[in-house]
Amino acid sequence: MAEMVEYFPGIGKIQYCPDAPPTETLCFKYYNPSEVILGKPMSEWLRFSVVFWHTFRGTGLDPFGAPTLSRAWNRPAETVDDAKRRLDAAFEFFTKLGVQFYTFHDRDIAPEGASLAETNANLEAVVEHALELQQRTGVQLLWATCNLFSNPRYMHGAATSPLAEVFAYAGAQVKKGLEVAKKLGALNYVFWGGREGYASLLNTRLREELDHMANFFRMVVAYKKKIGFTGQLLIEPKPKEPTSHQYDYDAMTVIGFLRTYGLQEEFKLNIEPNHTTLAGHCHEHDIAMASAFGCLGSVDANTGSPELGWDTDQFPMSVRDCTAVMRYVLAQGGLAPGGLNFDCKVRRESTSLTDMFAAHIGAMDTFARGLRCAAKMQQDGVLDGLVATRYASYRDSELGRSIADGTATLESLEAHILKHGEPEVPSGQQETFELIFNRYL
Amino acid sequence: MAEMVEYFPGIGKIQYCPDAPPTETLCFKYYNPSEVILGKPMSEWLRFSVVFWHTFRGTGLDPFGAPTLSRAWNRPAETVDDAKRRLDAAFEFFTKLGVQFYTFHDRDIAPEGASLAETNANLEAVVEHALELQQRTGVQLLWATCNLFSNPRYMHGAATSPLAEVFAYAGAQVKKGLEVAKKLGALNYVFWGGREGYASLLNTRLREELDHMANFFRMVVAYKKKIGFTGQLLIEPKPKEPTSHQYDYDAMTVIGFLRTYGLQEEFKLNIEPNHTTLAGHCHEHDIAMASAFGCLGSVDANTGSPELGWDTDQFPMSVRDCTAVMRYVLAQGGLAPGGLNFDCKVRRESTSLTDMFAAHIGAMDTFARGLRCAAKMQQDGVLDGLVATRYASYRDSELGRSIADGTATLESLEAHILKHGEPEVPSGQQETFELIFNRYL
Amino acid sequence: MAEMVEYFPGIGKIQYCPDAPPTETLCFKYYNPSEVILGKPMSEWLRFSVVFWHTFRGTGLDPFGAPTLSRAWNRPAETVDDAKRRLDAAFEFFTKLGVQFYTFHDRDIAPEGASLAETNANLEAVVEHALELQQRTGVQLLWATCNLFSNPRYMHGAATSPLAEVFAYAGAQVKKGLEVAKKLGALNYVFWGGREGYASLLNTRLREELDHMANFFRMVVAYKKKIGFTGQLLIEPKPKEPTSHQYDYDAMTVIGFLRTYGLQEEFKLNIEPNHTTLAGHCHEHDIAMASAFGCLGSVDANTGSPELGWDTDQFPMSVRDCTAVMRYVLAQGGLAPGGLNFDCKVRRESTSLTDMFAAHIGAMDTFARGLRCAAKMQQDGVLDGLVATRYASYRDSELGRSIADGTATLESLEAHILKHGEPEVPSGQQETFELIFNRYL
Amino acid sequence: MAEMVEYFPGIGKIQYCPDAPPTETLCFKYYNPSEVILGKPMSEWLRFSVVFWHTFRGTGLDPFGAPTLSRAWNRPAETVDDAKRRLDAAFEFFTKLGVQFYTFHDRDIAPEGASLAETNANLEAVVEHALELQQRTGVQLLWATCNLFSNPRYMHGAATSPLAEVFAYAGAQVKKGLEVAKKLGALNYVFWGGREGYASLLNTRLREELDHMANFFRMVVAYKKKIGFTGQLLIEPKPKEPTSHQYDYDAMTVIGFLRTYGLQEEFKLNIEPNHTTLAGHCHEHDIAMASAFGCLGSVDANTGSPELGWDTDQFPMSVRDCTAVMRYVLAQGGLAPGGLNFDCKVRRESTSLTDMFAAHIGAMDTFARGLRCAAKMQQDGVLDGLVATRYASYRDSELGRSIADGTATLESLEAHILKHGEPEVPSGQQETFELIFNRYL
Repeated sequence: MAEMVEYFPGIGKIQYCPDAPPTETLCFKYYNPSEVILGKPMSEWLRFSVVFWHTFRGTGLDPFGAPTLSRAWNRPAETVDDAKRRLDAAFEFFTKLGVQFYTFHDRDIAPEGASLAETNANLEAVVEHALELQQRTGVQLLWATCNLFSNPRYMHGAATSPLAEVFAYAGAQVKKGLEVAKKLGALNYVFWGGREGYASLLNTRLREELDHMANFFRMVVAYKKKIGFTGQLLIEPKPKEPTSHQYDYDAMTVIGFLRTYGLQEEFKLNIEPNHTTLAGHCHEHDIAMASAFGCLGSVDANTGSPELGWDTDQFPMSVRDCTAVMRYVLAQGGLAPGGLNFDCKVRRESTSLTDMFAAHIGAMDTFARGLRCAAKMQQDGVLDGLVATRYASYRDSELGRSIADGTATLESLEAHILKHGEPEVPSGQQETFELIFNRYL
Repeated sequence: MAEMVEYFPGIGKIQYCPDAPPTETLCFKYYNPSEVILGKPMSEWLRFSVVFWHTFRGTGLDPFGAPTLSRAWNRPAETVDDAKRRLDAAFEFFTKLGVQFYTFHDRDIAPEGASLAETNANLEAVVEHALELQQRTGVQLLWATCNLFSNPRYMHGAATSPLAEVFAYAGAQVKKGLEVAKKLGALNYVFWGGREGYASLLNTRLREELDHMANFFRMVVAYKKKIGFTGQLLIEPKPKEPTSHQYDYDAMTVIGFLRTYGLQEEFKLNIEPNHTTLAGHCHEHDIAMASAFGCLGSVDANTGSPELGWDTDQFPMSVRDCTAVMRYVLAQGGLAPGGLNFDCKVRRESTSLTDMFAAHIGAMDTFARGLRCAAKMQQDGVLDGLVATRYASYRDSELGRSIADGTATLESLEAHILKHGEPEVPSGQQETFELIFNRYL
Repeated sequence: MAEMVEYFPGIGKIQYCPDAPPTETLCFKYYNPSEVILGKPMSEWLRFSVVFWHTFRGTGLDPFGAPTLSRAWNRPAETVDDAKRRLDAAFEFFTKLGVQFYTFHDRDIAPEGASLAETNANLEAVVEHALELQQRTGVQLLWATCNLFSNPRYMHGAATSPLAEVFAYAGAQVKKGLEVAKKLGALNYVFWGGREGYASLLNTRLREELDHMANFFRMVVAYKKKIGFTGQLLIEPKPKEPTSHQYDYDAMTVIGFLRTYGLQEEFKLNIEPNHTTLAGHCHEHDIAMASAFGCLGSVDANTGSPELGWDTDQFPMSVRDCTAVMRYVLAQGGLAPGGLNFDCKVRRESTSLTDMFAAHIGAMDTFARGLRCAAKMQQDGVLDGLVATRYASYRDSELGRSIADGTATLESLEAHILKHGEPEVPSGQQETFELIFNRYL
Repeated sequence: MAEMVEYFPGIGKIQYCPDAPPTETLCFKYYNPSEVILGKPMSEWLRFSVVFWHTFRGTGLDPFGAPTLSRAWNRPAETVDDAKRRLDAAFEFFTKLGVQFYTFHDRDIAPEGASLAETNANLEAVVEHALELQQRTGVQLLWATCNLFSNPRYMHGAATSPLAEVFAYAGAQVKKGLEVAKKLGALNYVFWGGREGYASLLNTRLREELDHMANFFRMVVAYKKKIGFTGQLLIEPKPKEPTSHQYDYDAMTVIGFLRTYGLQEEFKLNIEPNHTTLAGHCHEHDIAMASAFGCLGSVDANTGSPELGWDTDQFPMSVRDCTAVMRYVLAQGGLAPGGLNFDCKVRRESTSLTDMFAAHIGAMDTFARGLRCAAKMQQDGVLDGLVATRYASYRDSELGRSIADGTATLESLEAHILKHGEPEVPSGQQETFELIFNRYL
């Protein structure tokens, strides 16, 4: 990549070595990109993507501690040239790791200037470099997004700020963001409303803020169409943190918001399981819900620690969880144009460069195992068959069909029960489902 | 009430005694029903309602212990006559306490029979008695509801059961429930989907279940109109328990569901703060959200212990929380035809009859303090004024108005920022809001 | 077992069939009791035990629903003969499943009478029958315990009741419990303080209650020694539920309590991971802590759903979690005289008799996989080696040894730093540990 | 204070103005320092202390956003002179607010140098200035502490680091910390083990780390005695964050740790309610527990939002909570030499200088109300009397006395029950306790 600097010296392209010993951690044991699973190569089912922010801008800073991660690409001060160098390091990493996609926030890749005009000029310069790197390596931009939460101007919200001027700044920033996405051929464009919520109900007008947010999204759709950007728009739910309450609480909340404001045709969802669990659901709940409503667009493939109440953005290392996620992905025929985006960060104590590789390799292997298990489950059809049997009465009986198609009435239902009496209710067999699921792991 | 039996001997009608000493607990110190607050008597703002299930069917049973509450009206076996006697006890309590409303599930007030027909006959007999007691005392039925969760047939769900026969049974039951509600002049009718959710995703079809639930509600609306029942239909959100996930997770989820299926004109919400906090929100969040979307229909006035992860249905005893709730109730002009329904139970260790009174009196007094505080806040307008100032730019500037009315575009916003530069962002003053709020308590 | 009644007709002894297809769920795929792992048969590492209460007294009752589980052995009314029949069913189940151990509360196995004397007589009669069944089948009593939480007399606590009479009743009950345990050759005796805590701080004297609890345990130790009962005494921590706060919150709380009152030589801990997670820790935390302090006596082998805030007592089905637990068990050389007690209940929707088998088989297989994985990890020594390296400085350097043996002083430490300067701090490599751990699953 | 610079221009000494209108927020409405309550001036019961870190080093940085708080005393770069200027600002604030105490970490008040020697020299220089300011204003140092968590060297722990060199550094730092505390007349010295725990069990040796931590505290005690520092040593529990598990989980865990290692005579506890609630307890639980065991040394007077899973360090604004805390403080005769330390930060959106005052005034007033309410409760004795009655049997009956003094045996208890039969168990009256408590608010 970079002419003279190698940022990950001594590490070559990661290989598939199914028989490597446990001590050999710089190889894949399960992820074999070209192996065909259910008619497609693994790399098409597992559209892995590396995030630029955690992985190339992360410092290990936490609310109780100073930066711990010392990276060659972060050392000097902040200029456009520094920004380009960081991109070089990132593309070296992407290609050595063998992922096809990456993602960024506008402010990750280029420094802010003294004015919006200057900031935009910085961004353009870096984007030129990114385009060149994309073309050189074949790595694609899975999605772009605007950072509408870090700058102090957004502390009360961006599209939901009580200040019209701040709303306007957010709009201006997203305008540029969409232009950049188009230029780089981004396959998707994501909105994460990190400050779109409230710190306190006492000083907040809920409805007015939500109405503004809807107007914001309408403006986005209009401009997207105007410039001909064809990427999928995605909203990423999160329940809270940094706010006390974030309006995009979880999948169903966002689906409800989109329907309420007539935006359901224009947006899909980017689901992050760590956000799902913080909202009080199980790991795959929002994946399942979004998929059920036809709007699972992409996945931020990470996990949390259920005993912790904040967003830890850990690398997904649970074979069970990744299998559960991949079952829904398989069932809907894949995620494209979305992907599996590693919105994860190495622990701040994982300070070596090899930790960056081990973390991603561990996660990619875990998802590869998940894919293999889920594919076997789907092929065998045992679990799906048990579920189909459970719901068969809605297909096999006249009563069931009248309910499913909405022609039944309370009177027809009462008549049925008065005639036929108490129904037989079979076991739900949860433990049997779990046992069978486990046998595929 | 009851000719010969007095179930609460020695306790008379509870009086308003503002100067009673702390040891005198069988009186109101703050609740004065006829006192006029903001143009209405307190009793109109505070439409208190007693629940039949916890208060007259509760036994103190918990998952780790046997019943502790020995009540005269629960002692003998289960017949229609027993059921009538229980109602007598309840109406004695309502009138001594001085509440205007009560609520019940169909299965609370009358015993199930060997068939639906028999069950319905039992219910009719008890309803006649209830009607007579209502007429005699003037106590009204705030809302009725059907218990679609206790009977084993509903273990996998009612309207979301995988079995069409069970769906049908639920429909038959609700048909009768609506008829009963009409007969008793119920002001509202509530749906709480205690089993409408899943125990495990492995054996569940999310979308199919939700589609069925929507069809169920459509049948309800049709039948309601057919029989001319004019009460307000309400859905009560709860995130989980007894299920692992209940579809009516919280206010925004239900609002989204209603919009998704085109049911938003027919249903409002019955919000229970203990459910709100179990969904990960602050006490008054769902009250605020429902009110913001014009669908706060009624309140199950209770509370939980935030350190506990299950539904404790405690009596609301926090002046702060009740003030927060009453601010939204005042702002929307009241709750009628809804009310403040004490969906609460005395602790299983609170075994005496006077505990039943103390618990309700404590809660009523706390809400009365909340009303007094909230009314003073509204009259003074200090907090409302600070909020109005915060959002003034959407009224006072051309930019703001163009955002609020949706005529702005990303281009117009960018042009504004390029011309005017970085906005000034004032303090959110949360602590000042809290300090002022506190000064009204 | 039972002469004429077979409670699980059509089900034979569960076999080890590693090659059975996923549809064949009444067999073990991983649990092969006689297979030798690290020098011991699997059955010695995995001392599986079935609980009598959930499995033979459970009805499917929950706070929102009626019983769902209809069992032949629960059908008639409650007599000593009924109790014996229930034991017959249980021993049929134990032997068909192939477990070596069971556990009970005194009140599970025998009905209460009108007085303590009568209750004790009932218990003695049933214990005779249990002894006979134990002798006939070879199944042993892993532990006995007294139910000091269900009876209303214990609603405010047993050993921590504010009433001396209730404390006395609990003492009388445990006296008999110890005698029964001795008679049946129980290997351990457990105390779970389900009501030993508070519902409200307002009416509670913390210190007085804890002092009484310590006195209670002292009396237990004295009587145990007097009658020559040689089983291990165990305390089972739980943070809350049914109380708002249970004094035996978690492993470290109990260890601290024992040390505070000088009881540490007499008691070990019975750890239940579902309680551990409810206390805010990860699944294996209390296992690790108890083991670190030499007091891991036995394990209630179950799990919860981390998104739920109450005790679900689910069957352990996570290979990762069971591996984590077995690593600590292996490291301390096993659990004997303790075991892996399935304090689990089938979901109330799992109503068939085969669900009882599938649930236990699934859990036993999962633990067998955990044992196999953990044994391989221990044999290879890769993870242990990495850990040893991390802490090597406390062995390899004079400085480290002086800290470990306590001879260092703040002055000697300061002198060292002033001389040697800033230490080098290597990576913690968490993701690498996770990746290697995963490769053994 | 500072000769020429006034950091809070336009704000004078905060006055007690009980009749000020709600819009006048820069005054006390309830806190009247010289007013005598139960024999002592309010200022002696309410030993308020301001924290240097949040209040004078806080920037509004959060994990998702850049600094928002622009303070004159933080503007230039980091030198000893800058550090002195910051102290000037702080003492201006302390005296205008009228608090008697402050607290700091060593690294808050003075910049680190290139070596420990240089760092210590910086610290000494600033400490001279602090001493002068203390003498000039009469403000005292409630406690000092060492920051053993921010520097990357402590990322794996300080006293529990796997590296002996890091342990040594921590020891060297605390040696200096104790010397500084002595010089400034600190009344207490606090240990908060922000990194003393684990991120992952996989790479951690629990017992070895805890043994080292105990050795660390032994060295501290030895050095404290050697130099004649007479302040009280305090440990501050916290369950997690930044670690996944912090060893000092809660009050009982720390009490148990101290007993386990024989350190109970040397340390008391510094309780922070926001940490208590994160450990799964109610607000005042650890206050109550620590006080019950005679080791409530000081209080970090703050609060959290129960719906959030991380440490928000909010200003305490709940009259109910502060009353609950003050009841325990009154019951033990006060907190001296400890105090009520505002370990709180203004929200990052509260950017104005007046927010700093409003936040502290709001909290001080809330505690003053809590003191007034608690004092009235204690004087009236109604609640205490009800509690005494509840536990009377341990005083009034021979049986109870034999339990309390430990002379009872299981045999004597059984004999009692066999003779006297089933005890009467009265109501726990929780709602009545709550109602009466409320009437004092």
